[in-house]
Amino acid sequence: MTAINMLRLDSSSADFNAQLKQRLAWDASEDLEIHKRVLDIIADVRQRGDAALIDYTNRFDHTHFNTGTELELSKAVLQQAWDSLPADQAQALQTAADRVRAYAEHQKLQSWQFTEADGSLLGQKVTPLDRAGLYVPGGKAAYPSSVLMNAIPAKVAGVGELIMVVPTPRGETNAMVLAAAYIAGVDRVFTIGGAQAVAALAYGTETVPAVDKIVGPGNIYVATAKKLVFGQVGIDMIAGPSEILIICDGQTNPDWIAMDLFSQAEHDENAQSILISNSGEFLNQVEISINKLLPEMERADIIRASMTGRGAFIKVANLSEAAEVANRIAPEHLELSVADPEALCAQIRNAGAIFMGRYTAEALGDYCAGPNHVLPTSSTARYSSPLGVYDFQKRSSLINCSAKGASELGKVASVLARGEGLTAHARSAEFRI
Amino acid sequence: MTAINMLRLDSSSADFNAQLKQRLAWDASEDLEIHKRVLDIIADVRQRGDAALIDYTNRFDHTHFNTGTELELSKAVLQQAWDSLPADQAQALQTAADRVRAYAEHQKLQSWQFTEADGSLLGQKVTPLDRAGLYVPGGKAAYPSSVLMNAIPAKVAGVGELIMVVPTPRGETNAMVLAAAYIAGVDRVFTIGGAQAVAALAYGTETVPAVDKIVGPGNIYVATAKKLVFGQVGIDMIAGPSEILIICDGQTNPDWIAMDLFSQAEHDENAQSILISNSGEFLNQVEISINKLLPEMERADIIRASMTGRGAFIKVANLSEAAEVANRIAPEHLELSVADPEALCAQIRNAGAIFMGRYTAEALGDYCAGPNHVLPTSSTARYSSPLGVYDFQKRSSLINCSAKGASELGKVASVLARGEGLTAHARSAEFRI
Repeated sequence: MTAINMLRLDSSSADFNAQLKQRLAWDASEDLEIHKRVLDIIADVRQRGDAALIDYTNRFDHTHFNTGTELELSKAVLQQAWDSLPADQAQALQTAADRVRAYAEHQKLQSWQFTEADGSLLGQKVTPLDRAGLYVPGGKAAYPSSVLMNAIPAKVAGVGELIMVVPTPRGETNAMVLAAAYIAGVDRVFTIGGAQAVAALAYGTETVPAVDKIVGPGNIYVATAKKLVFGQVGIDMIAGPSEILIICDGQTNPDWIAMDLFSQAEHDENAQSILISNSGEFLNQVEISINKLLPEMERADIIRASMTGRGAFIKVANLSEAAEVANRIAPEHLELSVADPEALCAQIRNAGAIFMGRYTAEALGDYCAGPNHVLPTSSTARYSSPLGVYDFQKRSSLINCSAKGASELGKVASVLARGEGLTAHARSAEFRI
Repeated sequence: MTAINMLRLDSSSADFNAQLKQRLAWDASEDLEIHKRVLDIIADVRQRGDAALIDYTNRFDHTHFNTGTELELSKAVLQQAWDSLPADQAQALQTAADRVRAYAEHQKLQSWQFTEADGSLLGQKVTPLDRAGLYVPGGKAAYPSSVLMNAIPAKVAGVGELIMVVPTPRGETNAMVLAAAYIAGVDRVFTIGGAQAVAALAYGTETVPAVDKIVGPGNIYVATAKKLVFGQVGIDMIAGPSEILIICDGQTNPDWIAMDLFSQAEHDENAQSILISNSGEFLNQVEISINKLLPEMERADIIRASMTGRGAFIKVANLSEAAEVANRIAPEHLELSVADPEALCAQIRNAGAIFMGRYTAEALGDYCAGPNHVLPTSSTARYSSPLGVYDFQKRSSLINCSAKGASELGKVASVLARGEGLTAHARSAEFRI
């Protein structure tokens, strides 16, 4: 095996910003051919409902469904999956679910209102979505942790009905995925996937009820379908490749850091693992650890491609500079593997999730620490947030004017409305003066 | 003038759902030619920066700018606009700004954290966006209220720098718009508009700094540009035509209700004004009021087109049924013009803003009640919310495991990671056991 030579950047070099920008660049341009095929599938499902949904499912998933009702998995099937799990898996799944739920409970928004001196009431009413849809990829690469992370915040928010879709290629189901759906409290499960499943959730068919929002990861067809039905329903973010950024002061075991970098790199050849340190010598040590540990890894080829193609080691003068580079990158996962993570955290503005201290491996957050593992990628942490209970709640403004309040506000509204040339607005307000 | 005959629907008729669906239908399909022209403008501004921005601005806005610096309006110009306002307008604007700010203060999210028994810390850190952009339409149809509604939540959130863009066709500025920017605390103002302004905000030029999120209304070019730069930056919603839904028990002055319907209808021929009542006789009275008041209205032609083309009167059996129809419509603005608005409000799940009681004209909310007037349209209130402080804040998850916590969680993560075939994840966790 040839050794991995990590790309080295130095924040003191004149072209550092340009080099960093180039390394971070990610082309998420759309494939127009896929776009067109997905549009056709959506239109067909809208028009023919179950018939189209069954056709596409049988064709793409090599299944043999005849009627809509065959697409649904009963609660008994889910419970059976749960009951069949080995004890260690069941316990791990339950612990993870309990912790994700406990953290999510902290995120619940509450309605509020206040009354003004003249008796007028102002407020904000928070309600859960009536119905949400959860897309879960099928086959071998199914992630039960993803079911927990997407389903539990919806249930904590109080969503009326949570519908999960998961394809079953050649009839194959994943017991851990179904078990996760069971303990997360998913209400109904349909064995469909791809753009046809997204279309069914967005518009409804005779069998699948239309939802208000669709969340969950999927391949390029699923992602494209979600973009195309946005507006008809809400969607969560469209995720790019996974990323980790580690800031280390050089005092953590380099093997630990190497493995933490691997844990993102093994996801995908396009995943991005970056290490920042104020110690050039430490960067050398981690590179040695990388080459020592790589041959032991089951997914060594993916890790090698990711580290070589998209990874980087960045040397900075000090940790404050490291924080500023991190803010510019706005990573999905940020590990602060330093002596005083609280102090460094105070300097961080842009990151999906922050893993503080040498013991907090990013992988703990992927599964069971409690916070969500659905996080903003590709620098979108500059303006967006982890998936949470708030994604399944909405707010309505409340205004209840007293006669006196309406009279006073009516005068103000009248002046402003006439200033904008909207005289029906003005007269509507003036009627109440 | 021929009389307006409102479309009548009755919830007891067999095809009510289909008829309602048809009346609500709104084709927001994209114009591919506009799409292509906007893509070209964005690419050109990305590549040529200020030079392209100035070219497009001079061409589309009939201006004569030569350098980037000429595009910026100084703070002195804004203050001059404020100082030049007639007293009644200045006072109305200040009252509106104060009330919008006071309401927004209630929306601020706070960071939180908690410590577990083993010393591990979990939390959520809330930070404002570094920089936000506010698009404001120029020319005659400029709305100072819109400046307040978009700018104030951003400033309350603590956004580092708020950049406003407003085109000045033929050099024309609107004093009320600039005055509103002044009292809302906008940091910098550039006299640019259209797709070129959106591109400049998204990618930055030599003169215009790149922002993290772009908000504010605009024409089809602006809306298309916002969609196309989404991902590079965050955006607010893409608004459809304005809507009002009024539920009335038949006891409000029919002239008031007619004028409230007009106040949406005058926005735009595609605006939608719907009245629901349990009294057919009241619907007749409101129709009489409509035809009595219409000739007095300055924007009578727009109102007539909107009421005739998209309006509706819906007869229901009782107010509970009215609430269910409202939940299905999920209107932008919902007036509950009834004796007991609290009781009816408790049945409402889907609405952007709820105006309770006979005195609370929707127009008060447009200008000065306090809650935002940027609201979800086209039934998107099923899953989205008014613009608010929360749109200018983001959350980062915090995890800081103690040695003991990492050891316990590591065991759980290891089992789940191996269940998903991700062994680098497992080993990264196991290092800390």
